[in-house]
Parts: sequence; C-alpha cells; structure tokens
Amino acid sequence: MRKIGIAEIEDIALGAALLGAGGGGDPYVGKLVAIGAVQQHGPVTLLEPDEVPDDALVVPIAMMGAPTILGEKAVGGGEYQTLYDAVSSFYGKPIYAFMPIEAGGVNSMLPIAAAARLGLPLVDVDGMGRAFPELQMVTFTIGGGSATPMALVDEKGNSCIFRTITNKWTEELARAVTMACGGSVSVSLYAMEGAFMKRYGVKGIVTRSQMLGSAIRKVKETSQGTPEEEFLRITEGFKLFRGKIGDVLREVRGGFNFGKVLLEGISEYKGRQAYVEFQNENLTVTVDGELLCTTPDLICLVDTETFTPVPTDALKYGKRVLVVGLKCFPLWRTKEGLDLVGPRYFGVDTDYIPLEERCKGGRG
Amino acid sequence: MRKIGIAEIEDIALGAALLGAGGGGDPYVGKLVAIGAVQQHGPVTLLEPDEVPDDALVVPIAMMGAPTILGEKAVGGGEYQTLYDAVSSFYGKPIYAFMPIEAGGVNSMLPIAAAARLGLPLVDVDGMGRAFPELQMVTFTIGGGSATPMALVDEKGNSCIFRTITNKWTEELARAVTMACGGSVSVSLYAMEGAFMKRYGVKGIVTRSQMLGSAIRKVKETSQGTPEEEFLRITEGFKLFRGKIGDVLREVRGGFNFGKVLLEGISEYKGRQAYVEFQNENLTVTVDGELLCTTPDLICLVDTETFTPVPTDALKYGKRVLVVGLKCFPLWRTKEGLDLVGPRYFGVDTDYIPLEERCKGGRG
Repeated sequence: MRKIGIAEIEDIALGAALLGAGGGGDPYVGKLVAIGAVQQHGPVTLLEPDEVPDDALVVPIAMMGAPTILGEKAVGGGEYQTLYDAVSSFYGKPIYAFMPIEAGGVNSMLPIAAAARLGLPLVDVDGMGRAFPELQMVTFTIGGGSATPMALVDEKGNSCIFRTITNKWTEELARAVTMACGGSVSVSLYAMEGAFMKRYGVKGIVTRSQMLGSAIRKVKETSQGTPEEEFLRITEGFKLFRGKIGDVLREVRGGFNFGKVLLEGISEYKGRQAYVEFQNENLTVTVDGELLCTTPDLICLVDTETFTPVPTDALKYGKRVLVVGLKCFPLWRTKEGLDLVGPRYFGVDTDYIPLEERCKGGRG
Repeated sequence: MRKIGIAEIEDIALGAALLGAGGGGDPYVGKLVAIGAVQQHGPVTLLEPDEVPDDALVVPIAMMGAPTILGEKAVGGGEYQTLYDAVSSFYGKPIYAFMPIEAGGVNSMLPIAAAARLGLPLVDVDGMGRAFPELQMVTFTIGGGSATPMALVDEKGNSCIFRTITNKWTEELARAVTMACGGSVSVSLYAMEGAFMKRYGVKGIVTRSQMLGSAIRKVKETSQGTPEEEFLRITEGFKLFRGKIGDVLREVRGGFNFGKVLLEGISEYKGRQAYVEFQNENLTVTVDGELLCTTPDLICLVDTETFTPVPTDALKYGKRVLVVGLKCFPLWRTKEGLDLVGPRYFGVDTDYIPLEERCKGGRG
C-alpha cells in the first residue's frame, strides 16, 4: 500500500502512454483529469493485488471510444458516482476498490480520478498490460470472466447497463451506444472478486508504468552510452526503425481510429522505408516489406529526442520517431490469447511470431 | 373485463394492421406469435383502463426495429420473462398488467403473447392509436412520461437497461443497440402507473382494432352500396386514390424501412398519378403533385378487393390498392403532438393541415 499524488501521476501517465502502444488516448488529457481529482480530494491509496480480500468487489473504470474524440469531450466528475451506484446496486454490495482495465494515456488515469473522487483505493493491476481496441481483449476473458453487467454513462447523463451472452456481444452493443453517445463514454465492466483479479490480472502495472515514466524522464541523466541505448535498456525494447513521418492515412470508422503511418528512414535507416498499421493501437510494423513485429507484442513510437510516446492520434507529417517493440504479457502468447488479440483477429494474414524471434537476425 | 381468444386475435390483428398505417409489421407474423401463446396458456384477460388501480404498474411490451426484419427473426418465448424481471426488479414491485404501445400488425400482438405467457392481464389502451417509427412518438411523451428505464432483450439472450435524459436519447441509444442486435429486438418502455395511463393513453384501442377487423372481414355482407363505400363508412375513412403499384423504392437504413411507392390511377383515377412516402409508416400521399394527407393522420393502403391492409414491407409491383386517410388521435393535432410527429419532424416541408380540410374540395 502506498499513496499516489501528483508526481506519481505524471510518471504513471508517461509510462502508461508508452505501454498504450499508440492507443489509450492522450496522456495530457488523462493527466489533467487525474490531477484535478487529486488536487480536490487528496492522494489515492494504491493497493497491491494481494492486499485485496478474495471476496471483495473490484471494479475497472475506463473510457470507451475513439481516442481522437476523448480529447474533445469533457469527462464529467459525476459519471463515476453513477457508475458506482449502478454496479454496487447490481451486486448488492459496496465496491472495495477501482482498477484500470488497460495501460494507456487516458485509461490509466481515469481510475485514479474515480478513486480520488469517491474516496476508494486503486489496485495495482489491469487486464491487458498494454492497451487494446476492443473490450473483450482482456486477460479476464481468457479466465472466463464476464464483461457484464457492464455500466456505461455519457457526460450528458444517459446511462445503460448491459448483460450479454459473450464479451464479444458486449463489445458490439456497447460500441453501438458509444457511437450514438458521440464517440466516447465512461464505462465500468468486468467487475470481479479479489480472488479472480489476483489470478488473471496483470499485476504491478501501475507501478511498472510509473517506473517507466520516471526512467524515460531521466534517460539523459542515467545513460552510459547514447540516450537511445539507455531508453532501450530501461524499456527492454527492441529497436525496429528510426524515421521521419512521411504520411499518415487515418479514418475514424465504427468508433475506432484506423490508419497507417509511413516512415522514411533517417540516420542508419536512411534510404529504407517502413509503415505501421493501427486500430487505435499499433498492430504491425513492416520495414522494407518485411514484418518485424505484430500484435499482441507492443509497438511503440517515441520521439527520437525526448522518447515521449507518440500516440496514433498525434502522428504528424515530419515528426521523427523511434519505433520500438516490447514483449507482451505472457498470457497473450497462448492460443487463447492469440485468438483474442493475435494478428489474424485484426485481419493481418500472418501467424504470430514473438518479437524476439522475428528480430533474431540482429536487426536494429 | 373480457377474454381475448383466437377469434378475437384474428380480428385485432387485421384491424390493428389497418391502424398501423403501413407500419407495425406483418400481422401474419404477429398473429402466429399471439395465437401460439394463447393456445398454450389460454385466453388473455382484457381490462378496461378504468379497471386498473391508479398506483398499479402497467408496462408496454413491443418489438423495436425494421418491420422487414421482424419476419426473419424468431420471437423468443423467454424474452418476456427477462423483460418482466428487469422492469419489476427496477421498480421493486410486480407488474400489474401489460399493454401495447402502438397499433400495428406485430406490436398489437406481442403484448397479448406476453400476457398469455406470464398470466397477466392486458389493458385496452396504447400510446399512439396508430403506429409511428420512433419510440419517443407516444402520447406519454406529451404527458411528460419517461421512456426509461427501458429494458431491451434480443432473441439470443443479450439485454440492456437504459436510463436517458430525454425520450429522444432513448430512441438514439436503443436504436443503435437494435441494429447491433441484428435489426429487431423486444422492448419494454414507458412503464407507468395506472393513473398516468388513464390520463394520456389512447383508450379502447384494442377493442377498436377488433371492431375494425371484424367489420373489414364482413364488408361484403354488410354493404348497402359498393363494398368500397361500406369500407369507407366503417373506417370513417377519406378516399384519397385508387391505383396500381408502378414502382417501389425502398431501403433499410438506420434501422428503418424508408421508401416511396408510385401508383398509377385505375378506374375513376385513370390517367392520374400518386405517390406515398414512408418511414416504416406512411408519411404523405401526393396525388398529381398535390399533398392530400400527411402524418400524423393515418395513411392506409388496402387491397381494392379484400380491403386487407398492405403494410409498407409488403408493397409489390402490380398490386391494386385503395389509399385511405383516417383522422389521428386528437392529441397529435396539438402543437406538442405535431412537434413530435408532424410532417416537419420527418423532413416534409409543409404545415400540418388536417386530413378533412385538405379533402374538403370533395376529393375522392
């Protein structure tokens, strides 16, 4: 158990944005919401998963929708109370703690804001260890957990509670309502007991985000060699490409940001070309026609100088980025995991090959 | 209080299909569902509105979606129990009776099926006195009634409960889920107390449907002049056109059947042309370029020989139809009513002029 204040929030937002793998929303927007809540209500207690009783009700809080829209709509303070009421009245017991469902600039932050506003602790766990675009894409689905009853509220005061036969149906119905509500909403889903959370959750993710954020911030102070080498060391990242953004193809469709970013190689990559495809999060990196990394491994674009993560909705012509691959949570590499979030699910016609095997040839 | 058995269902389905004004679904499909339930569970008790206690919970049951799709999807028997449980647990008291929300081939029938299956009475009232395409279009909206909490279930077992800030938002969100569920679902909305139902409901609509259905069936026996004259007498209808269907333009879009049917005049209308525009229900009739009737008055197309109503999803090239206008429930002609269901709401750029005034020139 420890406290999360404004300094911690700054680091968590930065580190979680890296783990967002291009998605998870703008960490600046997320940070403002969390810091505002903490300034008003004081620091939030962060619990280790093992500090939560087995039968306690733990409830993820998140936003659902296209990251591009998140920044344009307000995140209301009253929405968390509505979510709390809907979930706790359904279960007939109080909520013990909130938790994030994914790592990402926004969804790592909103549970902190919710916890601060309602005076509840936050648990150091999530259901992805990164961000993914669809709501059935959590480790809890592999564990047989149900996304529903799921509560959804918008900033105007509309709400609904879903009960569905599969988590994929939850995605379909909630996505339809998200779009009807203007493209982004606050949700609570996968409410679970402590025991289940401990068994299937990605433990320590808030702390990992904070450590990464802190390390990125200090990369120039701590580096022995180049800052880039230091960045790769602290993130345990695989360098995939370095380039200047030559073009960004983007469309908001079905509540998602779809697109492709084209990169022209710089420095040791000069003359080479790469592209990264995304659906909210980055899905694939292809360098000179060769696939170097695919979902569920993390594909992260960061600024070549500051190593600040560049989310898919902030990609801009001319920006220089380093493309880095990070190994995903081991459960995603199982058959069940790949069925949910492997390349074929996203329409990429290739088998999943772990990042470290694809990169064996000494690439980068 | 009286009983509704199979003979009554046959007449109600026929009369309600006429009042459906082109919408409300296929009465054959609706009838099968109601008759099946009554065969299994026995006749349903029909209560007059004044027989319902003021504080009793009265709950409309309906299908939501495009009529074309209703006929292709099963209507599950278990859906009504799910709706009952969701609504009664929300209010913390049992449901006293079901009621229809609109007149129409399907939505006049499903509440009978629900009442039979759950052993509850049906109230002789609805919220339209006809059919309309969107769910905020009920007399209860004028009375300040809320569509929510609204329960929605599909035949697969997915469900949700909506709470919205306006009935128009209910329409937006529920329509989005309806489409995600495949285009048609069962819903319960505008749950209300007896007193409110008596004040704003269209009373006696089930009995009116039955009388109309019975009279249409016997039109050739009872007529003094031509059967058509008798049909117009019993329905108090205004004859607007008689013609052969020359073309049907139709599209299913946003969960609705939109379209336009072109008619070539026959017998005394020979050489003249008309068209009828619809959004599930018929919205306007234009004869030789002149608007003769608009929503909220009822525009009904019936077979020229049998006077069987022809819903918009059964319009076919070559069919001969009589186009008849019926006066709507008086509340629809108020400013509040016309804001909800007048021609301008549907994008028709004209003031509402009552049917009987538009037809004063001795037309028909």
